Amino acid sequence: MSHPKPVILTGDRTTGPLHIGHYAGSLRNRLRFQLSHEQYLLLADMQALTDNTGDIKKVCSNVLEVALDYLAVGIDPQQSTICLQSQLPALAELSMLYLNFVTVARLERNPTIREEIRAREFGRDIPAGFLCYPAAQAADITAFKATVIPVGEDQAPIIEQTNEIIRRINTTAGLVVLPEVTAVIPKSGRLPGINGKAKMSKSLGNAIALSASADEISAAVKQMFTDPKHLRIEDPGQVEGNVVFSYLDAFDEDQDEVEHLKTLYRQGGLGDAVIKRRLDEVLQNFLGPVRDRRALLSRDLGYVQQVVREGTERARAITEATYAEVTRALGLFQFQ
Amino acid sequence: MSHPKPVILTGDRTTGPLHIGHYAGSLRNRLRFQLSHEQYLLLADMQALTDNTGDIKKVCSNVLEVALDYLAVGIDPQQSTICLQSQLPALAELSMLYLNFVTVARLERNPTIREEIRAREFGRDIPAGFLCYPAAQAADITAFKATVIPVGEDQAPIIEQTNEIIRRINTTAGLVVLPEVTAVIPKSGRLPGINGKAKMSKSLGNAIALSASADEISAAVKQMFTDPKHLRIEDPGQVEGNVVFSYLDAFDEDQDEVEHLKTLYRQGGLGDAVIKRRLDEVLQNFLGPVRDRRALLSRDLGYVQQVVREGTERARAITEATYAEVTRALGLFQFQ
Repeated sequence: MSHPKPVILTGDRTTGPLHIGHYAGSLRNRLRFQLSHEQYLLLADMQALTDNTGDIKKVCSNVLEVALDYLAVGIDPQQSTICLQSQLPALAELSMLYLNFVTVARLERNPTIREEIRAREFGRDIPAGFLCYPAAQAADITAFKATVIPVGEDQAPIIEQTNEIIRRINTTAGLVVLPEVTAVIPKSGRLPGINGKAKMSKSLGNAIALSASADEISAAVKQMFTDPKHLRIEDPGQVEGNVVFSYLDAFDEDQDEVEHLKTLYRQGGLGDAVIKRRLDEVLQNFLGPVRDRRALLSRDLGYVQQVVREGTERARAITEATYAEVTRALGLFQFQ
Repeated sequence: MSHPKPVILTGDRTTGPLHIGHYAGSLRNRLRFQLSHEQYLLLADMQALTDNTGDIKKVCSNVLEVALDYLAVGIDPQQSTICLQSQLPALAELSMLYLNFVTVARLERNPTIREEIRAREFGRDIPAGFLCYPAAQAADITAFKATVIPVGEDQAPIIEQTNEIIRRINTTAGLVVLPEVTAVIPKSGRLPGINGKAKMSKSLGNAIALSASADEISAAVKQMFTDPKHLRIEDPGQVEGNVVFSYLDAFDEDQDEVEHLKTLYRQGGLGDAVIKRRLDEVLQNFLGPVRDRRALLSRDLGYVQQVVREGTERARAITEATYAEVTRALGLFQFQ
């Protein structure tokens, strides 16, 4: 190819079906990226294991659920390669290799890891796999020779650490065997939960699943956090931190009308019922077809599995070629 | 098979050719084990990397050197499977899996690791791969379903940690997918260096290589540490800590005569020259044929490589079957 597309790697831990927060934060971008980039979507079941050895059933059963979500929102397996981490041995091989090129102290300094250790209250009993996962992510990224990685703001240090490892490998090899990586932090911030909490999460019970029924959507919109001080319709209301407007920002195709509604809401005279009715309609219009496609596909899980299997085979060839190339460049023994 | 042989795994880091200390401590046992056990010999280039990223050339060039040593002393590739760690992806896969079943604190408590961190003066800058190597060894061992592991006294904690991981895997799976392991600590202690230091090592310059020439052997015996207080032949001499007697214990086939010589030496009247002459003869007789076979084989490295390649292919099938079995037992996703 004279002008190969840049390679992008994203993916999801297979710990639960995806929700509209995933759509706003990443899936929507992936629909664009699959046209402009060579895109790999990693079903990260091994990474999910790092803090889910107590619930492997969950990690397993969500492999096809997440794949279903991808296909339901319009990921095209001809344009994007959907692949399963635990069936790609070269990722583990590169991980084990990279662990020799990073110190324990450096892993412990990684702000993302430090924050997550704190949040999960691991203390000293952090699983070794969890401490090592920046090296595993470096393996995932470099195995595909990805150069573009969409990440949340809090994950930028992972990319920094990946580039450190890449530079150490290239320096040791004496040639540029791995390209450095650029983090792309999406403009759209993180979608809040319906209760206004910063993080939308199934386990926090504040998410709207991509598979939500019409009734579930309406119920979620009804109980959605707006402006607790906006008691009477004629009072001025606040738009910032108002979940309904955050969702309208993310999903309403008529952004001019959203801006107009914001103005009215701020002035006073626009009730929550009106904006919620609009959001309900917007979400129903968006999620209806997604739900229908998902339901249709879920009746043919053999097809979904075939998509993942074929993607994994494609990914296997690519990642094994990278492992061979890296070990050769480093000067490890090769059979002649 | 109605009575399958027990499986034994041993091997060597590929950081240098082997010496007579390796022979006395392990190779000799392997010649017996290959008759009674299903024996796998792992050329541990990935483990060698954990503290040799600065000298990968050494790790690489010694792969065939160690294999040559095996064949030269009589390891039979029809009876023992010689295989290369970096070409066995399932070892890395199992390692990454096991890292989720062991905490960082537990790895840091491992006495072998603590001692080696201290000895290597890593401090906080210990490579993550080095901290994680007990999990990697558990992967090596279990991948072959080995139940018998010959180890030095200082490595017993590694086996303990392996069994901890095995029990966690079996408990999580709810069935005995991996057999527990027994450490075999050889009766023959560690052979001292020719200068009397406890450890024989090429890098310490106190070793006799299996490939040593006749002159090198004689020179080594001549400068060998005996009893520094045994200045005159008629003085009583000390046998304990006397390297010549340690080597006669290890290599002289006439142990009755060695005991007789020890008595004479202790009484006084037996000179160092006499016992050194005897040891020189013993070592020449032992190493002559080894050196000749080694020289012959080194002229046909294609054959040596073929032995390692075929062993690695055999090992690949076995270890990949284990990975599939373990992930299935744990309930990770499997393609139907």
